[in-house]
Amino acid sequence: MKKPAPRETILSLFSQTPNGFVSGAQISTELGISRTAVWKHIRNLRQAGYNIEAIPSRGYQLIQSPDILMPEAIQAGLECRVIGSRVCCLDATDSTNLQACRFGDDGEAEGLVVVADQQSSGKGRMGRRWESPAEVNLYASILLRPAILPFDAPQLTFLSAVAVCRAIMSSTGLQARVKWPNDVLLNGRKVAGLLNEMSAETDRVNYVVLGIGVNLNMRKDQFPEALRYPATSLAIAKGHPVSRLDFTRSLLQEIDALYQAFLEQGSEPVFEAWQQLCDMTGKAVRVDCNDLLIEGVMAGLADDGALLVRTATGKMERVYAGDVRPA
Amino acid sequence: MKKPAPRETILSLFSQTPNGFVSGAQISTELGISRTAVWKHIRNLRQAGYNIEAIPSRGYQLIQSPDILMPEAIQAGLECRVIGSRVCCLDATDSTNLQACRFGDDGEAEGLVVVADQQSSGKGRMGRRWESPAEVNLYASILLRPAILPFDAPQLTFLSAVAVCRAIMSSTGLQARVKWPNDVLLNGRKVAGLLNEMSAETDRVNYVVLGIGVNLNMRKDQFPEALRYPATSLAIAKGHPVSRLDFTRSLLQEIDALYQAFLEQGSEPVFEAWQQLCDMTGKAVRVDCNDLLIEGVMAGLADDGALLVRTATGKMERVYAGDVRPA
Repeated sequence: MKKPAPRETILSLFSQTPNGFVSGAQISTELGISRTAVWKHIRNLRQAGYNIEAIPSRGYQLIQSPDILMPEAIQAGLECRVIGSRVCCLDATDSTNLQACRFGDDGEAEGLVVVADQQSSGKGRMGRRWESPAEVNLYASILLRPAILPFDAPQLTFLSAVAVCRAIMSSTGLQARVKWPNDVLLNGRKVAGLLNEMSAETDRVNYVVLGIGVNLNMRKDQFPEALRYPATSLAIAKGHPVSRLDFTRSLLQEIDALYQAFLEQGSEPVFEAWQQLCDMTGKAVRVDCNDLLIEGVMAGLADDGALLVRTATGKMERVYAGDVRPA
Repeated sequence: MKKPAPRETILSLFSQTPNGFVSGAQISTELGISRTAVWKHIRNLRQAGYNIEAIPSRGYQLIQSPDILMPEAIQAGLECRVIGSRVCCLDATDSTNLQACRFGDDGEAEGLVVVADQQSSGKGRMGRRWESPAEVNLYASILLRPAILPFDAPQLTFLSAVAVCRAIMSSTGLQARVKWPNDVLLNGRKVAGLLNEMSAETDRVNYVVLGIGVNLNMRKDQFPEALRYPATSLAIAKGHPVSRLDFTRSLLQEIDALYQAFLEQGSEPVFEAWQQLCDMTGKAVRVDCNDLLIEGVMAGLADDGALLVRTATGKMERVYAGDVRPA
């Protein structure tokens, strides 16, 4: 892992201090730079929106951080083994998934996170569009290089879904639910969507990109009128905005922990957690598979991630692609 | 499909003429161009190595085609429904697979064929190198966009293997054999290697690239000394060089026919043909799966392309990645 940037180290010192104060001498020693250089970094942080006070003989105090996504702010004190080893924050991009795939093609190491304030071509499943207005939501893509077969890569979609639910719980206390294959719902409305992409050879994965879009602070009037599925945001559900920065950090930590479990124990812990978070299990569902409509009771996930639906004749159908709704 | 280039049309007329002669008037009418323009095209073909004679009052006669890979020569009269809709011939490239993936990322339609006279970073399976000296072999990559799940994409490796065996048979009369998962052998030596790559979402394939390397006219002294597996070429086996152009055209036609069968009937016809071409079936084999060595009798292919090996205890092992050899 590369050496942290000075800004990252300073923010990290603020997050670790017991009394809220970090002295200029401490920063100077930690970074091996002059007091003048310390002062320049503090000035740059202030210009970036950080409210930092200087109290003579006590040091600097971080009063408030801006809710902007910057590598240093995301990485400072982040408790991750792999995820966030490199963070790339863009003001605007075509699609964070496309960017992460480009990094993947160029040999970037796993753990890279690409976030953007805005996407011009946000991608949903099956070539659909994902609405991506500026600076209210989280659009993130994470590059992984697990030593798995292409067959097993679809399992990682469920990992993202579980991580998003956990991050929503720890940021807001709200209980989100998962919807097969790649949605997260809050009060029955879509709050997050996942789109994994992979590059693979026949018997090995080159890389997987976990694409994650979460409606954080989107207002009702920002949703398009005609939606395939009703949508909401954390702010709408909670009644006030949430910190994009805190949510992002929380999400990356959840993904890191689940990914480690996946590498060590396989998909079972992820699938179990996913099934706990799915309230359609045991309920009557209707699955639209384009040319085929399957009706039955949702029985859970098969070990390859297929949706298991028991039809009226007792037959267990395995669904690999389709839209599921309560019947 | 785009309109064929004038050169392609002219070469196609030569291939269709019953008496060997094509008149200038005929070419002029067919292309809707002046006799002077016809003459310029003929001159260009001659400069490209085509031996074309002009016999007064009878027309032009194609005495000999050069063995160079050019789009017009590959496409002229090619009996394909999809494959070869666009052909891109490169003198040298990093890897035809990388090039075809780039076309895939940029939205190119399926059927694109990339061939190169030489590769600087020819790719083998599991990140290994594929020796790619200049102008003696075939290095080709084909872009496909089948409406299948990522789970089913590995089946296409077997399609390439069968197509290569059939093209070898029709070009040389030699009976090549397949070796799981992605090799073609001649007299027990490797004559071709296949490397498929795909870009996929969880429940759909964006594209698959069939990478095909065939040792056509490589001489014994051109093989590296230390090879993982003994290798040969069609020229070594046959005792004289083979036409790269004829082989390429034959291969593309075989792939096109098999791909149509795959789309219409699924993997069964391909798997059946592959198993017919595999002489290890029913024999004792040893499979090196990195950290695991499996010994037993090769029982064939599972429906997902896994190698089935029955061990001494009677258990049927499914192998997804490994190197298989006679025990």
